[in-house]
Amino acid sequence: MSPDFLLLFADRAGVFVFAISGGIVAVRKQMDLFGVIVMAFLPAIGGGTLRDLILSQPVFWLEDTQILGLAVAGGLAAFFFHRWLENFRPLRWADAFGMALFAVTGAAKATALGFGLPVVLIMGTMTASAGGLLRDVVANEEPLLLKKDIYATAALLGSAVYFVICMWGGDEALAFALGLAAAFVLRALAIIFHLSLPRSPF
Amino acid sequence: MSPDFLLLFADRAGVFVFAISGGIVAVRKQMDLFGVIVMAFLPAIGGGTLRDLILSQPVFWLEDTQILGLAVAGGLAAFFFHRWLENFRPLRWADAFGMALFAVTGAAKATALGFGLPVVLIMGTMTASAGGLLRDVVANEEPLLLKKDIYATAALLGSAVYFVICMWGGDEALAFALGLAAAFVLRALAIIFHLSLPRSPF
Amino acid sequence: MSPDFLLLFADRAGVFVFAISGGIVAVRKQMDLFGVIVMAFLPAIGGGTLRDLILSQPVFWLEDTQILGLAVAGGLAAFFFHRWLENFRPLRWADAFGMALFAVTGAAKATALGFGLPVVLIMGTMTASAGGLLRDVVANEEPLLLKKDIYATAALLGSAVYFVICMWGGDEALAFALGLAAAFVLRALAIIFHLSLPRSPF
Repeated sequence: MSPDFLLLFADRAGVFVFAISGGIVAVRKQMDLFGVIVMAFLPAIGGGTLRDLILSQPVFWLEDTQILGLAVAGGLAAFFFHRWLENFRPLRWADAFGMALFAVTGAAKATALGFGLPVVLIMGTMTASAGGLLRDVVANEEPLLLKKDIYATAALLGSAVYFVICMWGGDEALAFALGLAAAFVLRALAIIFHLSLPRSPF
Repeated sequence: MSPDFLLLFADRAGVFVFAISGGIVAVRKQMDLFGVIVMAFLPAIGGGTLRDLILSQPVFWLEDTQILGLAVAGGLAAFFFHRWLENFRPLRWADAFGMALFAVTGAAKATALGFGLPVVLIMGTMTASAGGLLRDVVANEEPLLLKKDIYATAALLGSAVYFVICMWGGDEALAFALGLAAAFVLRALAIIFHLSLPRSPF
Repeated sequence: MSPDFLLLFADRAGVFVFAISGGIVAVRKQMDLFGVIVMAFLPAIGGGTLRDLILSQPVFWLEDTQILGLAVAGGLAAFFFHRWLENFRPLRWADAFGMALFAVTGAAKATALGFGLPVVLIMGTMTASAGGLLRDVVANEEPLLLKKDIYATAALLGSAVYFVICMWGGDEALAFALGLAAAFVLRALAIIFHLSLPRSPF
């Protein structure tokens, strides 16, 4: 398998896993089938859509509708198998991988357009986590993303690593791999050791 | 009256009725006059605005400000007459008609831009129902749209009917009329027989 | 100091103060450091971002990343000094000034693009208040903006004053100054005399 194929496969897997996360929240909130599908779309394509709108780029899924099919599939998976999926440990790791991948993808898109570090950090983090935030806001839940867990911070780190390696003249593929690894490892450490960012102690 | 005039009139009526739905939620939430107007705008123009942003089209109300006046009028109607309007049965049917009309309008816009079925379905459904979703999210309410009732599903059906007839070489006006009818009839059946989509039984 | 420099300074101060308002809500909601920064961004750049997206303009902070630094600084200020800032009276006035400034800036952008009064009013009001609305929606709070206080109404007034003076052939700087003054004075009166818009009495 070529690296390009692997990457494409990983990207699609990320969409599917993120969609499941939305569908599970929807089932827990007792939404109907349509609500489950909508809630699957939010984390799967919400962050990338916002990124593309702000960067004045064509929204990525308009020309790549396979993405939409995978989002629907993730929603259906949650609808039918949520009980089993909620306690399915590997899903957490797939989600961490999806987050890392989305972050580096977003950072790469902004870097390719010539933006500097601040915008690259925002776009990487937004691609990885704005969809999950939208999911929680629409479900009328406290956005967990903003309250606990090192999640978006890992996306931030991955974006930064990608950008710095690119700026230092490193190979783009290397930057991609190391950014992805950095985000994933930090997220993994946070899961294993229950790491959290501090709250205001004042 | 020419069909074009009828369509224009129906479109404006749809905006007005959707605006009332937002205003009524606002009054119920004890919002002030400004809040009622803002909440009237969300269902009236929110879905179409999101559609135009994602399709990289000029936002429809920028050049057609009559729409904005009708949204304000719908908000004021809710502010002054909400007690009467809340129990006004025909409003339900006007809302169903507005939904059907918005769905087909959104589907037609995406079809005219050359998109395939998946994007057309999303755009039709989004035009008809994203504004109502926004309304509920901003009002900090559980989004009913995602929990019960066949509403967005009717918009989905109308968009599909429109697209399929266009693809089969049918007249655009015929596609519009049949799509509209399909969405409206399904919604009407849902109202009369209290049809709902299933929730996850698992 | 030239007027341009003053204006630039005031604009940056507005972003900083708005960011503090978001950070304070986040700390109160027990969000972590990342959540505080995200919540600082929403009021600081949310309204202007939405305005630029709808007007099909490049989003203002993509090319002016100092803005982003100030939003982060406002978030950090809230994180470390929220206890002190929450009861810091002058902040209220700085916020009122920021609102007035954002309103006139938004109105000026829409006017310069050739739009008429309805769109100018929406863009001025949106620039000044949509970010605060987003902040409350994401924090899962009842949006105060829509419930009490004359806040967005002051932004509406400032936008209207700006537009009318421009249309009457007045100097742009004069329109800016008087629009700013009108929005600020109305907001100040609302703070001092606890003015509110009416709710529906029906």
